[in-house]
Amino acid sequence: MFKTSVTIEWGDCDEAGIVFYPNYFYWFDCAFQRLLRSRGLSQRELRKRFGAVTPIVQANCDFKAPARYDDVLDIGVTIEADAERRFRVGYHFSSNGKTIGSGHEIRAWARVDAGGNIASAPVNAEFLALLRTPQ
Amino acid sequence: MFKTSVTIEWGDCDEAGIVFYPNYFYWFDCAFQRLLRSRGLSQRELRKRFGAVTPIVQANCDFKAPARYDDVLDIGVTIEADAERRFRVGYHFSSNGKTIGSGHEIRAWARVDAGGNIASAPVNAEFLALLRTPQ
Amino acid sequence: MFKTSVTIEWGDCDEAGIVFYPNYFYWFDCAFQRLLRSRGLSQRELRKRFGAVTPIVQANCDFKAPARYDDVLDIGVTIEADAERRFRVGYHFSSNGKTIGSGHEIRAWARVDAGGNIASAPVNAEFLALLRTPQ
Amino acid sequence: MFKTSVTIEWGDCDEAGIVFYPNYFYWFDCAFQRLLRSRGLSQRELRKRFGAVTPIVQANCDFKAPARYDDVLDIGVTIEADAERRFRVGYHFSSNGKTIGSGHEIRAWARVDAGGNIASAPVNAEFLALLRTPQ
Repeated sequence: MFKTSVTIEWGDCDEAGIVFYPNYFYWFDCAFQRLLRSRGLSQRELRKRFGAVTPIVQANCDFKAPARYDDVLDIGVTIEADAERRFRVGYHFSSNGKTIGSGHEIRAWARVDAGGNIASAPVNAEFLALLRTPQ
Repeated sequence: MFKTSVTIEWGDCDEAGIVFYPNYFYWFDCAFQRLLRSRGLSQRELRKRFGAVTPIVQANCDFKAPARYDDVLDIGVTIEADAERRFRVGYHFSSNGKTIGSGHEIRAWARVDAGGNIASAPVNAEFLALLRTPQ
Repeated sequence: MFKTSVTIEWGDCDEAGIVFYPNYFYWFDCAFQRLLRSRGLSQRELRKRFGAVTPIVQANCDFKAPARYDDVLDIGVTIEADAERRFRVGYHFSSNGKTIGSGHEIRAWARVDAGGNIASAPVNAEFLALLRTPQ
Repeated sequence: MFKTSVTIEWGDCDEAGIVFYPNYFYWFDCAFQRLLRSRGLSQRELRKRFGAVTPIVQANCDFKAPARYDDVLDIGVTIEADAERRFRVGYHFSSNGKTIGSGHEIRAWARVDAGGNIASAPVNAEFLALLRTPQ
């Protein structure tokens, strides 16, 4: 499991003093990008090395407990195969050992041709292995 | 079905020129607040009139097609009963008649007592009827 | 003066129940894009018709009074020449006739060549006239 | 000078592949909150210990060079006295030693009374010294 964390900032919370929930999805995306980076990848590198992008197909989050300004959110990220042309990125948020929420993204694998056109394709096995290997 | 719309702004899109997906959840929340407002309610009015708040329990979105800067997103909102202490807010996004995505929030009904403590409770029937009645 | 408005959403406010101030700059940008649109322009059209982009050089805002969830912000936008290669976009925010804040952006005029390189250039007079003409 | 850093995330950039500028102001606020935290303070602690809040009066940023996804932004924060009832927070952003932008916030010192009413007051000298002392 890839681990990272964020500290909840003042601007991330709403009038009720808890995280405004769309921000959790921003952190989903941040955590996924950080996982890519930890493997020497990035959106640009992904495109250069694999000729592919990873469009979002579904995003889901279950919220278990509120989190507040100044709390550190520990994020665990897991990568799993899904359908042939998709993969699943699981997210678990906790703070001081207490679960705050968990969810997932389903992302497609899409090849970009020379003209910039995008077509779904089977997920590249090397990519998937690279993301799943503990480091 | 309650209907509203937003125009996609420059800052809502990412480097790929399409909406950065967490923004859809921001629009979920905007659309729900607008529905409340159309019934003479608001977060504050809800608290005053019903002594309640509506914490988020789950949020989900399926993305069908990308949307871009300057596109107008038409949003349809539906309210349905869920479990006794929860209700479901359905969202459908389209642009020029084409479905962009659809999803839902599950929200709890929570009573706020004089000390500010929050406890889940059966969803107020008057509230649910008010939101569900076409206007 | 070009006029537009936004309604302050729940997610735009912080724990103190007032607008988290970086959002005012998001609305600066929205209002500028809307002004462009009202003239048949957009970031893409600007590039196609004038071969130019308008990078931000400076942004400033003075905050006079807080604004809250559900308040309608009326925004006035004015365009003025600045240095030869820059123009100034002025913003005034009010709510129920009361000034909330005012500020400006300084934007450069930059020509984009066939290779995608960007170089500052004197602001196109037709562009400036188009934005300044009342409609 | 207090130093901190952020990594630019995918969602922080616009279609041009550079930071959407209102995000710099979000990072202003983050950096200020981190400085408070490094002194054992926070918005809540500030209120408890000094009975005060620090409303924003002015925010300004000059943009010198674009920054992109995956760039690390190094942020330097300086605190200076301004008028009797205000203080100035200076920000300097750089990436790989190159200046990206610089700016400031002017913040007021405002006392909160038992009824929650806010009134401007001379900036607390202990507070200012605490923030200005190198650590």
